[in-house]
Amino acid sequence: MRSWIDLNSDMGESFGNYVLGRPDEVMKQINHANIACGFHAGDPVWIRRTVESAKRYGVTLGAHPGFPDKMGFGRRLINISQQEARDYVVYQVGAVKAFADAAGVKLIAAKPHGAFYLWAQQSEENSRAILEGFREVDPGFVAYLPALPRHPMLEVAEKMGFKVIKEFYPGLVYSDDGSIGVKRTYGEENVGDMVGLVMKFVTEGKVKSSSGKDIAVEADSICVHGDVINAPEVLTALHKALKQAGVTTRSAVQDLVKGKGKGNGRAHAAHAHA
Amino acid sequence: MRSWIDLNSDMGESFGNYVLGRPDEVMKQINHANIACGFHAGDPVWIRRTVESAKRYGVTLGAHPGFPDKMGFGRRLINISQQEARDYVVYQVGAVKAFADAAGVKLIAAKPHGAFYLWAQQSEENSRAILEGFREVDPGFVAYLPALPRHPMLEVAEKMGFKVIKEFYPGLVYSDDGSIGVKRTYGEENVGDMVGLVMKFVTEGKVKSSSGKDIAVEADSICVHGDVINAPEVLTALHKALKQAGVTTRSAVQDLVKGKGKGNGRAHAAHAHA
Amino acid sequence: MRSWIDLNSDMGESFGNYVLGRPDEVMKQINHANIACGFHAGDPVWIRRTVESAKRYGVTLGAHPGFPDKMGFGRRLINISQQEARDYVVYQVGAVKAFADAAGVKLIAAKPHGAFYLWAQQSEENSRAILEGFREVDPGFVAYLPALPRHPMLEVAEKMGFKVIKEFYPGLVYSDDGSIGVKRTYGEENVGDMVGLVMKFVTEGKVKSSSGKDIAVEADSICVHGDVINAPEVLTALHKALKQAGVTTRSAVQDLVKGKGKGNGRAHAAHAHA
Amino acid sequence: MRSWIDLNSDMGESFGNYVLGRPDEVMKQINHANIACGFHAGDPVWIRRTVESAKRYGVTLGAHPGFPDKMGFGRRLINISQQEARDYVVYQVGAVKAFADAAGVKLIAAKPHGAFYLWAQQSEENSRAILEGFREVDPGFVAYLPALPRHPMLEVAEKMGFKVIKEFYPGLVYSDDGSIGVKRTYGEENVGDMVGLVMKFVTEGKVKSSSGKDIAVEADSICVHGDVINAPEVLTALHKALKQAGVTTRSAVQDLVKGKGKGNGRAHAAHAHA
Repeated sequence: MRSWIDLNSDMGESFGNYVLGRPDEVMKQINHANIACGFHAGDPVWIRRTVESAKRYGVTLGAHPGFPDKMGFGRRLINISQQEARDYVVYQVGAVKAFADAAGVKLIAAKPHGAFYLWAQQSEENSRAILEGFREVDPGFVAYLPALPRHPMLEVAEKMGFKVIKEFYPGLVYSDDGSIGVKRTYGEENVGDMVGLVMKFVTEGKVKSSSGKDIAVEADSICVHGDVINAPEVLTALHKALKQAGVTTRSAVQDLVKGKGKGNGRAHAAHAHA
Repeated sequence: MRSWIDLNSDMGESFGNYVLGRPDEVMKQINHANIACGFHAGDPVWIRRTVESAKRYGVTLGAHPGFPDKMGFGRRLINISQQEARDYVVYQVGAVKAFADAAGVKLIAAKPHGAFYLWAQQSEENSRAILEGFREVDPGFVAYLPALPRHPMLEVAEKMGFKVIKEFYPGLVYSDDGSIGVKRTYGEENVGDMVGLVMKFVTEGKVKSSSGKDIAVEADSICVHGDVINAPEVLTALHKALKQAGVTTRSAVQDLVKGKGKGNGRAHAAHAHA
Repeated sequence: MRSWIDLNSDMGESFGNYVLGRPDEVMKQINHANIACGFHAGDPVWIRRTVESAKRYGVTLGAHPGFPDKMGFGRRLINISQQEARDYVVYQVGAVKAFADAAGVKLIAAKPHGAFYLWAQQSEENSRAILEGFREVDPGFVAYLPALPRHPMLEVAEKMGFKVIKEFYPGLVYSDDGSIGVKRTYGEENVGDMVGLVMKFVTEGKVKSSSGKDIAVEADSICVHGDVINAPEVLTALHKALKQAGVTTRSAVQDLVKGKGKGNGRAHAAHAHA
Repeated sequence: MRSWIDLNSDMGESFGNYVLGRPDEVMKQINHANIACGFHAGDPVWIRRTVESAKRYGVTLGAHPGFPDKMGFGRRLINISQQEARDYVVYQVGAVKAFADAAGVKLIAAKPHGAFYLWAQQSEENSRAILEGFREVDPGFVAYLPALPRHPMLEVAEKMGFKVIKEFYPGLVYSDDGSIGVKRTYGEENVGDMVGLVMKFVTEGKVKSSSGKDIAVEADSICVHGDVINAPEVLTALHKALKQAGVTTRSAVQDLVKGKGKGNGRAHAAHAHA
């Protein structure tokens, strides 16, 4: 059984008057936030709010660029070119970085959103285009990536010298080959099921596939989608179960942040959940 | 008569398959480019192309944030809040800065686009909101601003410690009080008229108002709108007339850039127009 | 005291994965729905869902065109031209009408949304532009309009021969001259206050202004904004209070619909609220 | 050799200040116009202008719905659902129909744009979703469809009872199996090549594939893309060559329109090109 785990969530997905979920209740229970960049979700006002909320709660920050498709929440595959992918990444991550810099917080990671990750999956060239976009904004970015076997983006990221944090999705269905799909919407999760999935992963490093087979999942982070209706309750239950099992939660990238900020004095201690 | 002048243009206003004007023919004849940031015009692919084009021709670079209104090209006043203004600026300028950084070029200036400038005109608080956005991205930005008398943004910019470059618009109609309107579209300019207006400004520092009065205009830069259909021909004629009069053209901010780039070796010598 | 009243709400304001409020719980408690048309809010999928929901509950249907500004929810004034206003109306109302026609439901009314109504307020010409758009789609449309004294749109609508239904806003603050502002967002309303405001209006035809003066309001409909967080609870309380006072609720336009549908068999009986 | 042919073009693809091509010079040389509906291109102001221009020149009108993707001009495949497809069609075609109705012109046809047609190609279910959208707006619509062998949309359209007009694309490359790709952008066409391709099609009913094989193409219409830079010159040359060969040009749907309009007196005589 592992001694610690990182809890991350996709944040900043509200847009104008549309508030998605209960962002503050999620933020204070996670260790790392992937911030929507205004293409598939989010807008400048929500980016600033989300960066400030992450800072307040000592949550490490990553950018979460996606397809330019708010109507589909970035969860529909779009057949863009590699040039477009790279440029969409630089634009979105650059915009979020400006808010992080302004707040004196380090933007430390980046992760492709939703169907953008499916697009990366199509080829090494696609994966490389996204990662080149990351590198153009900051060669030191950590790549937060789904823990999928033989996904080209994992391989290319390592070849290109990125530090990689892999994440496990208790809310998605795994096939026998370890692949997952992208859901268009999330409803309410069963809290007990989610706790069971996470504890199995934490203790055994495994998840049951759709056919009932145990599959190994190597990951340091667990993603709870911020648009899950009862995400705050799921997180509270996870914290309780993890604590009982003696597993602490902390940002997987926090060591990389230390001493690199602009003296903003954030103590990236293991997240203390009241 | 002044010995030099800066020619600037609003660039990067193409969008997807929509190419506005003949960008390359304009870029090679100007000294400073204000780059659209994807809100009122432009997109990530065009921002990169425009940054690279500016680098190729040794043109200094500013960001040109505007209203989120491609349908109206950012030329319709929108009653946004000051918080929205500040956040829209940080987002847009941050995005463009990422492309400039990636290309090893210094983003040196910023200027509000179209009706965003009219919005600034409504109050000192509005002007301050935009300038705070500039400052959050880079406190060293030069503020490129229209040379309008008593515009609050000029005053607030100076109070806040910004270096300011003022620009003259030969393509707009000046009222007796020195104010100008924002045109929704530009057609073809009369080349001779444009040359006459610029040479009067260069030699006398004046422009004739709509009622025929001579008004003083203090400015170091002349703006030729990139969506003027015959902008390349206008610029060629201006260069010829300026040369004959012994007036050189150079970026008004070039001294500020020197030694500040990432060693990209751009020679910001006075622009040599063939 | 009046014997009946119409309860209307702005519906169909969800967008993609962003669900605004609890649409079904509102729809089953109102008599008339103004459907967002995809510019300030809504999208094709939500328009169809909303039309079908209105049909299911016997609610009469109007189109609710607004500014092309989802980021501001159509509640920021935009300085569009009269030609743009007319064309934006035809586009949006035409689109919603196609869904109503497909569902065999009569689209019977139209009403400008949010700041679009403030734009109409600027001049008779602006008001006329919007109403001409209505007329181009269907000269028989009922104009649902805020009950504001001397608003040019009320006058122009009557001159142009529109039937007009005026509506009262218990959720907005009235000035002494009867004018109101547009709020950018709605939170949770105090249910008791809302009931008090509506019952005062129903029994006395009056509302207290911000300075405490009683102002006369002539209206046949009461608008409860669909993005009020507790709109369903407000509506339930209103139905209870109205019933106790012997005031029935029914669509103000239902008589106009009778016999005009495509034989869809909707019984436009007074809305029976369980 | 056939005695007549229909020349159609995709029109109304300008957007705000972005004017695509020289619309008027194209409109007066074609017989049928497919009007962009504001999703992949176009906006309400341009839709009205285009409808009025088509009316002026006696050109028959179809709607041309596409993906909601102006940044990609609707030429990037998006993995939408069938429900989304149907709803996007009703919305877009309904909006354009409102302008046609207002102008007293019959909207007679509909055709999916760009990558939306590739999406249709994926399955009979996809094709049916689009056609159901057409039928919901007007069961009498003619389906304008690319003349591709065994495309499911052709088959489904015929099963559903649609009248179908097939079109030939001289500007696209045909494979041996008769399939074509979608180009992201069009540049300048070689006028002589275009004339050669059209005359071979008109005289032999064939096109040469990329491998040099002659392929049969059954079609009644020829599509010249409106964003081809020299589309007006191409059309002028086609008219000249067709006239010399004794081939007249007329709208393939004009007989269907006759007597069906709102008495707008348009004479759908064979287009007389000066």
